Parts: sequence; C-alpha cells; structure tokens
Amino acid sequence: MEGLRKERFERFILDLQDRITEQLSAIDGKSEFLEDKWERPGGGGGRTRVIQNGEVFEKGGVNTSVVFGDLPKPMQVKFGVEAGKFYACGLSLVLHPENPKIPTVHANWRYFELFDEKDERVDAWYGGGSDLTPYYLFEDDAKHFHQIQKNALDQHDEALYPQFKKACDEYFYNEHRNEGRGIGGTFFDYLRAGEEGLDFYEGMVMDMGKAFLPSYVPIVQKRRDLSFSDEERYFQEIRRGRYVEFNLVHDRGTLFGLKTKGRIESILMSLPPRVRWDYDFQVQPNSAEENLIHCLQNPREWIS
Amino acid sequence: MEGLRKERFERFILDLQDRITEQLSAIDGKSEFLEDKWERPGGGGGRTRVIQNGEVFEKGGVNTSVVFGDLPKPMQVKFGVEAGKFYACGLSLVLHPENPKIPTVHANWRYFELFDEKDERVDAWYGGGSDLTPYYLFEDDAKHFHQIQKNALDQHDEALYPQFKKACDEYFYNEHRNEGRGIGGTFFDYLRAGEEGLDFYEGMVMDMGKAFLPSYVPIVQKRRDLSFSDEERYFQEIRRGRYVEFNLVHDRGTLFGLKTKGRIESILMSLPPRVRWDYDFQVQPNSAEENLIHCLQNPREWIS
Repeated sequence: MEGLRKERFERFILDLQDRITEQLSAIDGKSEFLEDKWERPGGGGGRTRVIQNGEVFEKGGVNTSVVFGDLPKPMQVKFGVEAGKFYACGLSLVLHPENPKIPTVHANWRYFELFDEKDERVDAWYGGGSDLTPYYLFEDDAKHFHQIQKNALDQHDEALYPQFKKACDEYFYNEHRNEGRGIGGTFFDYLRAGEEGLDFYEGMVMDMGKAFLPSYVPIVQKRRDLSFSDEERYFQEIRRGRYVEFNLVHDRGTLFGLKTKGRIESILMSLPPRVRWDYDFQVQPNSAEENLIHCLQNPREWIS
Repeated sequence: MEGLRKERFERFILDLQDRITEQLSAIDGKSEFLEDKWERPGGGGGRTRVIQNGEVFEKGGVNTSVVFGDLPKPMQVKFGVEAGKFYACGLSLVLHPENPKIPTVHANWRYFELFDEKDERVDAWYGGGSDLTPYYLFEDDAKHFHQIQKNALDQHDEALYPQFKKACDEYFYNEHRNEGRGIGGTFFDYLRAGEEGLDFYEGMVMDMGKAFLPSYVPIVQKRRDLSFSDEERYFQEIRRGRYVEFNLVHDRGTLFGLKTKGRIESILMSLPPRVRWDYDFQVQPNSAEENLIHCLQNPREWIS
C-alpha cells in the first residue's frame, strides 16, 4: 500500500508535467520546453523542463524529481533524527512572462516519506501550493486565481482554502521589505495523517495540481496582447529583484536545496531572467505601481 | 581611552569616506555620489553615498555608519549574551562598473564593541578587508590589487597577508557553485586583543583603508577605455547573478543586517544594477570566460 501511494503520486506528477508543458508550449507558440534528465548520485533523479526566450514566457521551468536514499546531514538536522532514509517526489514550476501585464506564477506539489534505520516508514506528508506575483494588478486576475484554487479545495473541505490562503500570505513574505512577494494563493506543508487521512490529502493535492492550468492559463490569454512601455518593463525588472530576494533569503525549499547540494540549475531555474536593483527605487504617487505595492503591503481577501 | 578609540575610528572612516567619494566622483566625471543621511531609531545612524548611471560606475555605494544601543535580539543570539549594549562603526563600499573589463570591488573596515548590563566593555574587535570580482581576468590587475594590500600589511607584520588572503578565499566562496565570488584580496574579523593589541590592529586597519584607492583606482584607469561587446556585457550580467547569490545566500553581514532590520537600501546597495539568470549558462571552451571561471574554481597565489 505504501509503495502504491508513491507510485500513484509519481505517475500523477509525471503526467501533470507532460500536460502542463504541452499546453504552455502551445500557448507560447515560439519557444518550447527543453528537457534535461538528471540523476542524483545518492538515488533517484529528475526531469527538468525549461522554456526560454519565448513569445509569452521569457523564462520558465516545470520540473519533476523523484529522489531517495540515505538522509543527508542537513535533513537529519532539520528533522531531528540521527540516521535513516528519505523519499521525496514532486513537481515544481515557475513561469516568468516577458509582458509585465502577465503575472509570474509559482506552484509546487510534493510527497515526502521518512524511514528509520530498519527501513520502517516513520513519517509521511504532502505539501504544496500555488501563488501569483503580478507586476500590474488586475483584480479580476487575482480573484480568478484564488477562486479556481478555492473551488478545488472546497470539493474536499471548505475549511481548507481560508487556512491555506492565510499560510500563503504568511510564507511568501519579504520580512525585510515588509511586503508580500505577490498576491498569494495557497500554501500547505507537513500534511500528516494515518493512511485514510493521507488518502484524503492525496486526492486534494492531485486536484490542486489539476487546477493549475485553469487557474493561470486564462490570465495569460487575457493579458498577452496588452501593450507595455519601457517604464513598465523597468518596473517589472525592479520587482523581479524582490522575487530574487525572497527566493535566496527566505525560501526554505531553495535554501534547503542549496544546502543538500541538489541540482543547482534545477533549483535556481526559479530566478527571473533579467533583473534590476536601483538604489532606493520609488514609485509615483497614485500610480499603478503604487497600487501594486500597497496591495503587497496589505494582503486582501480576494473572495468575498 | 576607550572613548578616544571610538572617536579616532569614527573620524578616520568619515574622512576616508570623503576622500574615496571625492576621488571616485572625479574619476567618473559624469555622475557623482549623492548622500542620504539616516538615523537609527535605537541609536546612531549613517551616511549612505550612492553613485548611479555614471560614465564609469553603473552603480556604487560608499557608506559609513556609527550605530549603538541596546543589543538587538539577533545579536544576543549571535554573541551568546543575554543583554547589554553594542557599538559598531564602519565603512562599507561596493562599486559596480559599467565596463565588464573593470572589476567590481568591495571593501569594509569596522570596529565593534560589546558592553554588559553595567555598561562595562566586555569585548572589542576590528574587522574588514577588500576583494576584487573581475568579469574578464587581467592577471596584472589581480597582482596589483593583492600587492598593494600586502604592502600595507607587511609594514605591520609579514605574517598577516597570507592569513588574510586565505581567509578571503574561504569567505567569499559560493559553496553551492563550487567557485569563488572573485579573485580574493584580504578578509579578517574578530581581531581581539588587549589595549596595546587593539592599538596595533587600529593602525593596521587604518592603513588598509588608506590602501583602498591605490589598490583599485589604477585598475579603473587602465581598463576604462577598453571596448566591450554585447556578449561581454551579457557575461558580466550573468556573473553579477553569482554576486547576488553570494550576498543574499552566504554573506553574514548582509543577512545579519536584514535580520536586525538595518536600513535595507543601505545594505542592499551592494547588489548590482542589471543582472541576468539564464538556465544552465555555459561558456565556450578555451574562451576568456572559461579562463575566469577556471580561476574562480582554483584560487591562486597572486604574489610569488
């Protein structure tokens, strides 16, 4: 049964990766995702799929990995165990569109198991979520993105969306800037339970994965033909700097990947292609740029 | 006597800041350093001086700060004390030239004191150093930069340069990339001693500060009129990404500044103005770019 759970999740994420990259390549029309398969010396490996210099997507990655083996030292410290084995399987994606009117999106769905020295499973959990980082705020887009995720969660339990929405606002927060990375979405981690509870979470996480394309693609299609100025592009590059700051200073997944000597290029595919840091960049009063920042400083309820 | 030490160092760094910004503004010719004075709510403040969009310097900061007051929580944790006060005074600079043939440079000189609850000084130390980050390697420049610092140190003790050179290679290292941030220089921290020893270090640190302009300015003058291609500029922006990775993932000073809620714009002035991250960027075999990376992966002795 435990083996079946892993196999089901692996099949799910590999199939989802195919569906997502096929559809996004079709939407882009100019570039497509290129695949790098890699192996992890200690066990397992992954399929990194990256798109660059597209018509819509300036840079993006939709990566899966299934890794396992002896617990690396940093994981022993993190999980407070002395030895043992682990298994981790997940899909992680980040898309950085060229047009600043299309938001950047990030999503991740994962399953993790810990084993003791006798190879007994001692822990298991699901995690994941999906969040949106606009450069120019269209409230309809924020509402749509949240609504689709809420719909997927409500099928399972109506208590989940408010919890995961709040956790997302709290997690994707640039403490040192006093502002959110984006306008949120959902975030959940360490969803532990007995077998029946894990079955429940499995179904929920899979539905969240399936909700990704319907949550994001309509936004891309709605905004892709909007024109933008050099100034708007400039602002996007400044804001991308904040994205880098979050990922390199605060993101647990990124830092943990670097510490455990994961595949660097797969981990850092999340970083935007072109970025700026000006000293003390300021927005104009009553501008669209100020409106965005105000929203990042004051997380909203997108669904009433 | 203790008070005089602080006053001497403050006078020194404020005067050095004037000399450095005056000379660099004159060298740039187009932009000059603009000053932001700031105050720290808990005590003290600083003079942030930034140059942007210059003829030579695309972005740079030469900042001083003199801060003191109750020990913030993260400092209590770091120094293993429960309460008390601190005093810190220093100059920190980073210069990002436009021309990829001119290296980026970083330098810092600082003095720190800790006090117990009875306001007794219980610890005091000097720290600092200066390191060079070329995009295109000119061995003469690397040798010059190291030689000037070695000369300044040799006046005090010939054992210092080899120690500080090694510490610099070890500190400015992107562990996750298996390469140095640059070609090194000097790095030293926690130089503790009794009063006489502190006098010795004070003289040494001041001479290191005075050595900055002669260590860097001749390199700028020698390379500023070299032409560069779009491809060379592209490579510079990719390498600047590594600079960002070091500063946000590994640099103790930056992370400590963010944690203690220092003035964000003064801390992050160190980040380069325009940066790129490509997926799995590769250099051509036997190119100048490959030569640089080989050098960063294999720290050299620049002075025989």
